[in-house]
Amino acid sequence: MRRPIIGIMGAGDGAGERDLRYAKELGRLVAAEGWIVLTGGRPDGVMDAASRGAHDAGGLVLGILPSECGGVSEHVDVAVFTGMGHARNVINVLTSTVVVACGISGAGTASEAALALKTRTPLILLAPAPEAETFFRSLDQNVLVARDPREVIELVRSALDRAT
Amino acid sequence: MRRPIIGIMGAGDGAGERDLRYAKELGRLVAAEGWIVLTGGRPDGVMDAASRGAHDAGGLVLGILPSECGGVSEHVDVAVFTGMGHARNVINVLTSTVVVACGISGAGTASEAALALKTRTPLILLAPAPEAETFFRSLDQNVLVARDPREVIELVRSALDRAT
Amino acid sequence: MRRPIIGIMGAGDGAGERDLRYAKELGRLVAAEGWIVLTGGRPDGVMDAASRGAHDAGGLVLGILPSECGGVSEHVDVAVFTGMGHARNVINVLTSTVVVACGISGAGTASEAALALKTRTPLILLAPAPEAETFFRSLDQNVLVARDPREVIELVRSALDRAT
Amino acid sequence: MRRPIIGIMGAGDGAGERDLRYAKELGRLVAAEGWIVLTGGRPDGVMDAASRGAHDAGGLVLGILPSECGGVSEHVDVAVFTGMGHARNVINVLTSTVVVACGISGAGTASEAALALKTRTPLILLAPAPEAETFFRSLDQNVLVARDPREVIELVRSALDRAT
Repeated sequence: MRRPIIGIMGAGDGAGERDLRYAKELGRLVAAEGWIVLTGGRPDGVMDAASRGAHDAGGLVLGILPSECGGVSEHVDVAVFTGMGHARNVINVLTSTVVVACGISGAGTASEAALALKTRTPLILLAPAPEAETFFRSLDQNVLVARDPREVIELVRSALDRAT
Repeated sequence: MRRPIIGIMGAGDGAGERDLRYAKELGRLVAAEGWIVLTGGRPDGVMDAASRGAHDAGGLVLGILPSECGGVSEHVDVAVFTGMGHARNVINVLTSTVVVACGISGAGTASEAALALKTRTPLILLAPAPEAETFFRSLDQNVLVARDPREVIELVRSALDRAT
Repeated sequence: MRRPIIGIMGAGDGAGERDLRYAKELGRLVAAEGWIVLTGGRPDGVMDAASRGAHDAGGLVLGILPSECGGVSEHVDVAVFTGMGHARNVINVLTSTVVVACGISGAGTASEAALALKTRTPLILLAPAPEAETFFRSLDQNVLVARDPREVIELVRSALDRAT
Repeated sequence: MRRPIIGIMGAGDGAGERDLRYAKELGRLVAAEGWIVLTGGRPDGVMDAASRGAHDAGGLVLGILPSECGGVSEHVDVAVFTGMGHARNVINVLTSTVVVACGISGAGTASEAALALKTRTPLILLAPAPEAETFFRSLDQNVLVARDPREVIELVRSALDRAT
């Protein structure tokens, strides 16, 4: 059995202080469960914070990069270079067992959340802005919302239980 | 000078009656301006209606397909087969001079609208639901909103003027 | 019925004088048949020569670009921006009704010829080096070889006849 | 420092008995060096044999799949789902520190070898047919050729030394 892969998505630039703190904490908690953390791989924002949290806790961090080479967070263990720019967002979502949007303050994360719904990948919004929660719930009633990283872990556990 | 390409995006399945009517009318109006219509190429929903409207008015219809072959609307003149599934949404957005979301009732269209913002492609929401308008405006103040297809044409003209 | 799309592939940099002359002549002949010419879209080498030949003859030229924007030959009528780098080679092949490799002096063209065989798209090698002809024939006996652009047109006609 | 990733490419269907044996042995040797094995991820041919060899030796196996989900060799530890069909060949090559073509009897492997040259990824042909060796050497003099899996390991070591 392959280990579950939890995608942690969020803003590269312009992530807020709380989103960065939550991303790092979530990375740590996911690693502690023995799950793999997937991020967009760059050394910026939520991606970097989640990678750091997981890596420092001894977890395996899989980074899916938009570039052909380079531009990788030092906390990524396995770097997949796609050379496909934004199209790598699709790979992030398809590869994740569960997608967690850690703040949806940016358009890139919004595209990943929408693609998660489109591909029927379980989606958890972590501490979303009210506009984001209302919109994604209008697209799909099954969107999950967590108020903090610990609640994400509980929701992932339930999603994994349902999948088996 | 290449002709402008106007991407008309919307639900394949589950498009409402008004969205289909607007898509067909918008395809016709875009063709009448001498602009190329880009759609997702499949014989369903908004894609098919926009392709039909443009094709019947003598316009050129460019369809960007998710498949490796087949599954093309009969109203598409030039079919580009990507074999890349949802990743073709990125190509739709990058190839369009302006993106028009004709209803955002589905997650696929939401991903294209978000990718338009991410890639700084001018985005027009045609008769959006209030939740969609609020959310996309929270991501980017520059999102344009049109109440009917004629207003889309005026907004596209302004966007094209600004680009030159 | 959509018009056939003939992909003309070849070196961007380092194309030989004969390959460039053949590409331009082939572009002209394909356009004269009423077929669409597909190229990699950039203003270099075989791509540019084929686009110019077809465009000057009044044909429609479809360019599939590796970039997110820009870098387009002035002879391209419809530019599809993939933002996917080398992965656009797959789109070139899937979108072409027939692929013509105009010289296989470079690795990019070799990848497109191989992908044509992999996806069972009819492949014509135009004036190939002996090593290329021997290798591709060892992969697939159905590879076609033409000695000049006029022979390509005859082979395309036969391939289109068989497809209908 | 991330661990090197060695891509082992070869036929899914129609792989010969020697290629399968070499692929399994090479997977084992790569794992013994502490390097990650990358394959196309499917439960067929050279991909499956290399994955099995590495996995059984306690190595980490990264599979880059063409599908949106499913169709994974049981010996893959981390499955990346691209949903991009043949375009995933580009990701295989960009992600590999060194690419090894284990037999080039098929067009898919030929495309990966060509893409390795195009992207300047070190390429080793393991026991190639003479037509393949001649052709790829005509494209690029720097192509490496190994007669057996042990010689591949020596060539990879040299390539890694040069890269650092």
